[in-house]
Amino acid sequence: MSRTYFDRSAPIAALATPEGRSALAVIRTSGEKAIALVARCFSRPQALLSAEGYRAVHGWIFDPHLQERLDEVVALVFRAPHSFTGENAVEIMCHGSPAVVQRILDVLYAQGFAPALKGEFSFRAFTGGKTDLVRAEAINELAQASCEAARQDALLRLTGALSRTLEEIRSLIVAVLADIEARLDYPEEEGPDEMAHWVQSIQRAQDELSDLIRSYPGGRLRQEGVLVVIAGRPNAGKSSLFNLLVREERAIVSPEPGTTRDWLESWVSIGDFAVRLVDTAGLRNSGNAVEAEGVRRSHALLDRADMILYLVDGTVGLDDEDRTFVERHPGALLLWNKSDLPQCMPAPQGWTAVSAKDVHSFGGFESMLKDHLSTYVQKTQSVGQYEAQVRIASERQEHLLRQAYEALSQAMEAQAAGAGLDLVALHIRESAEYIGEVTGDIAPDEVLERIFSTFCLGK
Amino acid sequence: MSRTYFDRSAPIAALATPEGRSALAVIRTSGEKAIALVARCFSRPQALLSAEGYRAVHGWIFDPHLQERLDEVVALVFRAPHSFTGENAVEIMCHGSPAVVQRILDVLYAQGFAPALKGEFSFRAFTGGKTDLVRAEAINELAQASCEAARQDALLRLTGALSRTLEEIRSLIVAVLADIEARLDYPEEEGPDEMAHWVQSIQRAQDELSDLIRSYPGGRLRQEGVLVVIAGRPNAGKSSLFNLLVREERAIVSPEPGTTRDWLESWVSIGDFAVRLVDTAGLRNSGNAVEAEGVRRSHALLDRADMILYLVDGTVGLDDEDRTFVERHPGALLLWNKSDLPQCMPAPQGWTAVSAKDVHSFGGFESMLKDHLSTYVQKTQSVGQYEAQVRIASERQEHLLRQAYEALSQAMEAQAAGAGLDLVALHIRESAEYIGEVTGDIAPDEVLERIFSTFCLGK
Repeated sequence: MSRTYFDRSAPIAALATPEGRSALAVIRTSGEKAIALVARCFSRPQALLSAEGYRAVHGWIFDPHLQERLDEVVALVFRAPHSFTGENAVEIMCHGSPAVVQRILDVLYAQGFAPALKGEFSFRAFTGGKTDLVRAEAINELAQASCEAARQDALLRLTGALSRTLEEIRSLIVAVLADIEARLDYPEEEGPDEMAHWVQSIQRAQDELSDLIRSYPGGRLRQEGVLVVIAGRPNAGKSSLFNLLVREERAIVSPEPGTTRDWLESWVSIGDFAVRLVDTAGLRNSGNAVEAEGVRRSHALLDRADMILYLVDGTVGLDDEDRTFVERHPGALLLWNKSDLPQCMPAPQGWTAVSAKDVHSFGGFESMLKDHLSTYVQKTQSVGQYEAQVRIASERQEHLLRQAYEALSQAMEAQAAGAGLDLVALHIRESAEYIGEVTGDIAPDEVLERIFSTFCLGK
Repeated sequence: MSRTYFDRSAPIAALATPEGRSALAVIRTSGEKAIALVARCFSRPQALLSAEGYRAVHGWIFDPHLQERLDEVVALVFRAPHSFTGENAVEIMCHGSPAVVQRILDVLYAQGFAPALKGEFSFRAFTGGKTDLVRAEAINELAQASCEAARQDALLRLTGALSRTLEEIRSLIVAVLADIEARLDYPEEEGPDEMAHWVQSIQRAQDELSDLIRSYPGGRLRQEGVLVVIAGRPNAGKSSLFNLLVREERAIVSPEPGTTRDWLESWVSIGDFAVRLVDTAGLRNSGNAVEAEGVRRSHALLDRADMILYLVDGTVGLDDEDRTFVERHPGALLLWNKSDLPQCMPAPQGWTAVSAKDVHSFGGFESMLKDHLSTYVQKTQSVGQYEAQVRIASERQEHLLRQAYEALSQAMEAQAAGAGLDLVALHIRESAEYIGEVTGDIAPDEVLERIFSTFCLGK
């Protein structure tokens, strides 16, 4: 597909609810001609065309080419600018069947709708001035929120709390910048306390930036859930443990359909925590190029893991590969598996005997896992002792705020080293620009494209 | 929960879209007071209370107790009798986050909504006279439709085609019944050809019933997809094969969250077929009571399977358990696994060498599987050479139509044996009642409860 986010003339359509079987599904459309195009495959075109905004119309979607009825639906009409995107829009509430959704989408595409890119509805809302970037991201984060705490964080960002905090910090910096630039234009008017005042403002801005940056690890954990990775040599029992955990704990979000993965993963709820559980069984450790890529991804996953469950087959015992792994990952929870078998050797010091096949002994292992998770989460949440309400949760935001902080440090260093005011101003301007990029006031096209392409489809 | 389907006074609420993360989710409510109750936790209560039917209102759902905003939503108002259930209703379109949905539902329950039972919205639509039973089932079948053919079948039933066919058959039977009862009242008026005419009508009704009954295996396969079960002794590689198929083929519908299963399953699309793939790895074969139950379920699953993939570890070879299985299940596809290992023995006749660990050799196995599926589906679809448009797909319908057919056979036998007309009439009346039960014209409460409890939540 060669469409880009910037081709705003195309009418777009996508499924906005999760794939799967259910009572209802919602297909979202947007674009100047959205209402007219839906009317072409709607049993009551005039009712749709004459509907005011925020008006629902009952009818059938049909295939105008085959003259075949596809589903009985409620079509909800929105008229520009009073819609999510700010454009004309129709949201089609149909029966929640993958087969029905697919046929309706096919018919919509045939009428001229383009399949929406990921996040394209939000992108249009942003470029149409309906929202800023932080709030657009908050909508995405709200959907991704893995627990109640994450929902609260995202909602606070959605109401604009983070945007306002950033605007305050930026105002502080821009005020200093304006002063310095005035001084550059009229160097004769410099007052003695002026520099001290600037330094104070910059330090205040840095403190506030630092608070936000330190909120990231906790915010990320709340937002993304705890990543638990199961590792071990072939036949150590990784899949058995994965299956047991998925079966015994409540699977809260199932893997996204339609994606091929090198590993199996599932969201499970362990204690109070939303856990993204990954079985690396598919990641093989042998010679050829394809598998080397698997090993690379496996290492990347292990590096990002909040917790590693490392399994060894207790009937076989440790080998060098196990020892190397344990050295590289000192925090891993070491599990001596197959303790139910008579030929299982005693677990060495530091290893916990488990049986991934045995549901009956699962309780003990489960409570150990919960304790471990609880300790880990508490540690991470309190990093920086920062308990403010407004948190950041996106890596993009954290990265930009770090750069903003760094630029202010450089400005302070330049000033301390007696560099010219123009150099100081340069660094301060840089910092303001990084903050502007967070809210999207200043954001290059390719940056926008990258951000929105991480959103869900239909958003 | 002690509520029953017949407690129609309770306002009800449930999530109507699949659980998971997405742009939107829809929470459905219904009940006389539904609009007033939602208004209590809506930021613009007056707008909601004064909204006409088919009108959407933008606002926030908040927790009136904590005075906390939960999510920005669009609330779509329906007024009795112009709604799905025939009652007042509000459909709340919120952000598609499990955490958001849970909080909103909790607040709705606190306002007095009861969590809807499965199928309770459809049940109210049925008892409120908005739909007959066959069409209510068709809505459920539409959502469950595993492929485009199943969607067409279900839609045809939704438009009332099956209801009309059944009504025709029932009219035929009832006409004969009326004639016979008139004869019982006025025995003196019997004409010579009367009995021949009745027999002809009953035979026509039986032919039509038979056509519908024979449409069931094909309809069921289209509706439910192909059930493929992976079986074999421990360590034969069942989970590896399951994981490989889930990973390599497109998983189309993921397992329902929130349910604990004794086995792992996933919907995958293999060739043109929607396949429900089941790994019986969790079903163990040893002595104690819990596991005996597992074995019982395992057998039940194997009996229902459209296709069995039976794995043997080719480095270990066949044992008695394998031989017994193969005898019991002559149609199983026999897979000689671990063919990638040097110590793997040559596959015996009738066994196909595979490696469930090896993605590279997967193509060959995959095309064999597709051929097998294709042959099987074609065979099943053409059972009875019945190619009519109206099919049945529910076991309930098939069971009732078989009973209706049987009752007519008994009537014919009674007539042939020279039994009294009153006995003949009794069987014919029985047949008419079975057909009436299909459409719900005659349906005892517990039957209704059983039917609707198989529906999705929110439906």
